[in-house]
Amino acid sequence: MSVLVAGTIAIDDIKTPTTEHKNLLGGSACYAAISASFFAPTLLQGIVGQDFPEEHVETLKKHGIDLGGVEFSDGKTFYWSGEYFDDLNTRQTLDVQLNVIEDYHPKLDPTVAASKIALLANMSPVTQMEVLEQCQAKFVVADTMDLWIDATLEPLKALLQKIDLLVINDSEAKQLANTNNLITAGHRLRDFGPTYVVVKKGEHGALLFGEERFFSCGAFPLHEVLDPTGAGDTFAGALSGHLARDEGEVTFEALCQGVVHGTVMASFVCEAFSTKRLHEISQEDIQERYDEFIRYTHIR
Amino acid sequence: MSVLVAGTIAIDDIKTPTTEHKNLLGGSACYAAISASFFAPTLLQGIVGQDFPEEHVETLKKHGIDLGGVEFSDGKTFYWSGEYFDDLNTRQTLDVQLNVIEDYHPKLDPTVAASKIALLANMSPVTQMEVLEQCQAKFVVADTMDLWIDATLEPLKALLQKIDLLVINDSEAKQLANTNNLITAGHRLRDFGPTYVVVKKGEHGALLFGEERFFSCGAFPLHEVLDPTGAGDTFAGALSGHLARDEGEVTFEALCQGVVHGTVMASFVCEAFSTKRLHEISQEDIQERYDEFIRYTHIR
Repeated sequence: MSVLVAGTIAIDDIKTPTTEHKNLLGGSACYAAISASFFAPTLLQGIVGQDFPEEHVETLKKHGIDLGGVEFSDGKTFYWSGEYFDDLNTRQTLDVQLNVIEDYHPKLDPTVAASKIALLANMSPVTQMEVLEQCQAKFVVADTMDLWIDATLEPLKALLQKIDLLVINDSEAKQLANTNNLITAGHRLRDFGPTYVVVKKGEHGALLFGEERFFSCGAFPLHEVLDPTGAGDTFAGALSGHLARDEGEVTFEALCQGVVHGTVMASFVCEAFSTKRLHEISQEDIQERYDEFIRYTHIR
Repeated sequence: MSVLVAGTIAIDDIKTPTTEHKNLLGGSACYAAISASFFAPTLLQGIVGQDFPEEHVETLKKHGIDLGGVEFSDGKTFYWSGEYFDDLNTRQTLDVQLNVIEDYHPKLDPTVAASKIALLANMSPVTQMEVLEQCQAKFVVADTMDLWIDATLEPLKALLQKIDLLVINDSEAKQLANTNNLITAGHRLRDFGPTYVVVKKGEHGALLFGEERFFSCGAFPLHEVLDPTGAGDTFAGALSGHLARDEGEVTFEALCQGVVHGTVMASFVCEAFSTKRLHEISQEDIQERYDEFIRYTHIR
């Protein structure tokens, strides 16, 4: 079964305390789609401008991603640049140029619309809703961020009523649920609509909330983080891709396994700039880290 | 086998956004000893003044704790008062009076010295060393805090060379190891001397570092934290008490189970002021929460 990944496709410039890289492949949907492609056939939905480097198109194709849903438009590609400080624990956005995504209204092909799982990666909830309304996915995952909670709360709330799983980071979960207790936040967000909620805690792992079910997942231990950009998107991509593997209903057990696979893939992506680390790894590397993770977290 | 718990015995006044309690049983050794007493015969080593309420003595006795090592001195008991803000995420010390612990030099009875496990709960590393030098424990656990890293770094480093397990919270681990990466911090602290290091992360759980072994443990999910005072001491107490259960060598597997029991006991202590919640719970309550924790963290 396939997974549809809709979100932003971007060109990123990233600065860290030690180095700087320009013209990188970025955007929530690119991280998520490359990550998902390790687990299931992946279809990408989004828009780029005429400046989008052919090299990035090739990268996405090498991962076997179906680009039928990508609109190649006049104008410039969505652009983001950011700088990391303090051993990568704080990030500052230096520049954002919406460009072609500003007036983007996705039109889904029937093949794209037929995916079992849809991941609405981080972008405006209005655009996420446009995708959702056109797709026939059995299970819809959505990510969001503080920008949308601040600027478009009502469209976001409308979206939450229609999705199955919300993936959100810890500070944003607290903000949206209006509490400082993460456990309360996870449960409250379920009351907004989604059957399941995953709260991402970065270096502290992730929490999965279901009806009377709960799963706590640590992070994979990393000695060095080179570039944490896109870690959350990579997490959501692997989780969604993993859910698309099976034909049946999405179970809580499948979600737990998806969360661990998301954790493993997110650990890889932090080890190099942009999506570069994901171009080097094999299924064996993923399995090895998955097994290692189980050893790290299970009591004997 | 028994566990020796040495540390501070205090009278606490605690204020939270909703309420205020005075004359509470406090101190690192009291939290730790009560917690340890659920797992093994527990001997308490410390000092109190003549103002120490009989009620607190009774509380410790009710938990079957051997008070032979407690010196009842002239003068006043160690006193601490603190206030919590911001949904209990920030704490401010309002007053500290060292009183009788200022000139305390512990003298260990032979029965106390013979315990299998010694927990040097949070206090001055100079006093911790005095206890260590008199005891014959097979396995020594020590806790510390930022105050001692700032004020008595050399005695602390000398202590670290003689202990088996350091228990330390995340910000202090980073401070002492001089890195912002927790995984690097855990490994570096092992280079200071201890065979094992546990980094406590509060609501995010704990990490256990050994030689080529690692264990990541989430926190027990709590909807409401009433008073987090002593949670770390309670954690260390249960961990040490659990290690005293078995006769043989301390294995990595026993440490993992100890960390989970520490997590469970810390979750209880946060649910009421002072050590009060620990007076209500039974072995069955602990086992129930332990089993629940395994369900929350193990993949099926």
